[in-house]
Amino acid sequence: MAEIRLFLTQSQGRRRDMTDEILRRYRDSIDNIDAALVFMLAERFKITQAVGEYKATTNLPPADPGREERQIERLRQLAKDAKLDPDFTEKFLRFIIDEVIRHHEQIRDEAS
Amino acid sequence: MAEIRLFLTQSQGRRRDMTDEILRRYRDSIDNIDAALVFMLAERFKITQAVGEYKATTNLPPADPGREERQIERLRQLAKDAKLDPDFTEKFLRFIIDEVIRHHEQIRDEAS
Repeated sequence: MAEIRLFLTQSQGRRRDMTDEILRRYRDSIDNIDAALVFMLAERFKITQAVGEYKATTNLPPADPGREERQIERLRQLAKDAKLDPDFTEKFLRFIIDEVIRHHEQIRDEAS
Repeated sequence: MAEIRLFLTQSQGRRRDMTDEILRRYRDSIDNIDAALVFMLAERFKITQAVGEYKATTNLPPADPGREERQIERLRQLAKDAKLDPDFTEKFLRFIIDEVIRHHEQIRDEAS
């Protein structure tokens, strides 16, 4: 009886080790992608910061509704190609653009 | 007078062309980064989908609060390295994780 119990415990232990290893590999990939996303976002905000400053010096209007529409349409199409939910992708772009607008408002408030 | 007006119009036209060219270059870079973000996100959701299915077959609990805390802490540090707002980065990760949870709930509802 004690031997059977020991066998079961070892078997469960091995299965758990394997489970942990598989899960760990998935998580390593997620962590790599998240790091890439963070550095991509940092680069994106560097550019939108430059755009904001450029628009301010050239007296271009800060918002450009036509541009936003075209961005959304393009990203929805790319999402379909990548088998990603287009609605989520549109929500994602709006999430980023909201942050860009917040930055531009900060620049404006600091300048005034 | 007509000549001066013509000169001014031409000069303004040239300046606008240059402005448009500079803005177009910035926007091309933003569009490239956005495409990269979309494809990265598609890959990330492919992995979290696999994790969800794996957890369901191995009877692992769907949520893992310790893991989420570690992810947030790591990304906040990466954000600082990349000169990106850590609070925004945390909000961004939660935005993504909310979508992952929504997917997992869909898988669960379809299975039941």
